Amino acid sequence: MSWRATALTLFPEMFPGTLGHSLAGRALREGRWSLDTLQIRDFATDRHRTVDDTPCGGGAGLVMRPDVVDAACAAALAGGPDRPLVYLTPRGRLMDQALARELASGPGVVLVCGRYEGLDQRVIEARAMREVSVGDFVLSGGEPAALLLLDACVRLLPGVMGGADSAAEESFSDPRGALLEYPHYTRPAVWQGRAVPDVLLSGHHAAVGQWRRDQAEAATRERRPDLWRRLRETQD
Amino acid sequence: MSWRATALTLFPEMFPGTLGHSLAGRALREGRWSLDTLQIRDFATDRHRTVDDTPCGGGAGLVMRPDVVDAACAAALAGGPDRPLVYLTPRGRLMDQALARELASGPGVVLVCGRYEGLDQRVIEARAMREVSVGDFVLSGGEPAALLLLDACVRLLPGVMGGADSAAEESFSDPRGALLEYPHYTRPAVWQGRAVPDVLLSGHHAAVGQWRRDQAEAATRERRPDLWRRLRETQD
Repeated sequence: MSWRATALTLFPEMFPGTLGHSLAGRALREGRWSLDTLQIRDFATDRHRTVDDTPCGGGAGLVMRPDVVDAACAAALAGGPDRPLVYLTPRGRLMDQALARELASGPGVVLVCGRYEGLDQRVIEARAMREVSVGDFVLSGGEPAALLLLDACVRLLPGVMGGADSAAEESFSDPRGALLEYPHYTRPAVWQGRAVPDVLLSGHHAAVGQWRRDQAEAATRERRPDLWRRLRETQD
Repeated sequence: MSWRATALTLFPEMFPGTLGHSLAGRALREGRWSLDTLQIRDFATDRHRTVDDTPCGGGAGLVMRPDVVDAACAAALAGGPDRPLVYLTPRGRLMDQALARELASGPGVVLVCGRYEGLDQRVIEARAMREVSVGDFVLSGGEPAALLLLDACVRLLPGVMGGADSAAEESFSDPRGALLEYPHYTRPAVWQGRAVPDVLLSGHHAAVGQWRRDQAEAATRERRPDLWRRLRETQD
């Protein structure tokens, strides 16, 4: 049985999106993973097919009703196997490579894509959804975030990437904490008067390794003080 | 002149993706913003249309050549107006709502989508690209990240969202630092034995405001210690 993703959404036409192309798209056509969608609106019970209502306590926007979302979750989970429910929301814990690995190693995932102000808190709790954020910014809905999460998972599935390896993956998989990658260079050796650093052409593997480690540390310190601090705390 | 996005990519068929639907899609058809793509491979100069080569200093994967990417950038920027070049890479600074606002308030953006191990460092420097990351995980390429960034920008353009306002947007726009959003509730007042918190039905605006602030602080402290620490440091 292949890895299965189900997206609960008001815009099923947004899927598979980017994942219909390149390696993920080929793997989808080859059956290495599968993707289906459920239109949340199909689970509304009134004749206007209402999925949302005004927020209790006032405020702008609309909140998605717990009963409608719950019915959609029940339909997605029917027939098993048990798959985790992930709700994409800026209130969630930040997505990282460990989550992508964990999800990719299981039977699949059910992704709940919110719109408007998001879901009623009670259905999040009743269904024990994992709330996951892709960052501190506001999207039009959960769908682009769901595709991002799926991309990170699908490339880890057996047979999807072929033999390709990735320095980036290694760095984010380091249990001591992540360093940003070192900079990359390729031919030509001189371009517009800019030369590839000598050490990379030296053939001294140890020196290349040390240079890359230094570059990775310098980039992390400068660009991502949050990662740098976590790395230091873990090593102490 | 409407806001213009150009994506430099090896997979132009991935665009507009999610942005061809819903409010962003309607705004695209109405001409409130525009999106075009450039196939990076069209700027290769050899007969095999090579865009990448092995990394100097060794290692897995392939690196995108500086000369080919530079020619694609020149084509994207020709004819003006000056737009910032954003390169989506896990080596970048984290994307946030401030970046979305800044880009949305300008003439548009040129997005460089890497594949493989990424771009040769020299073209990043020569073109003064802004390196932006959407998080600490590995994607198959920059395209899903580019769509995420565009989604965050496009919803801020005049006329795209209509009158819709968003509590999430307000929270991430707070210059003192971000708090996660408070939880949302809507009808029915009781669902599966779970009641909407009394305070939200009380009609006491001050009490509602205080409850929401408390909930937002509790969620931030528990789920995002990084944000919580930044907030405390800013206030000291």
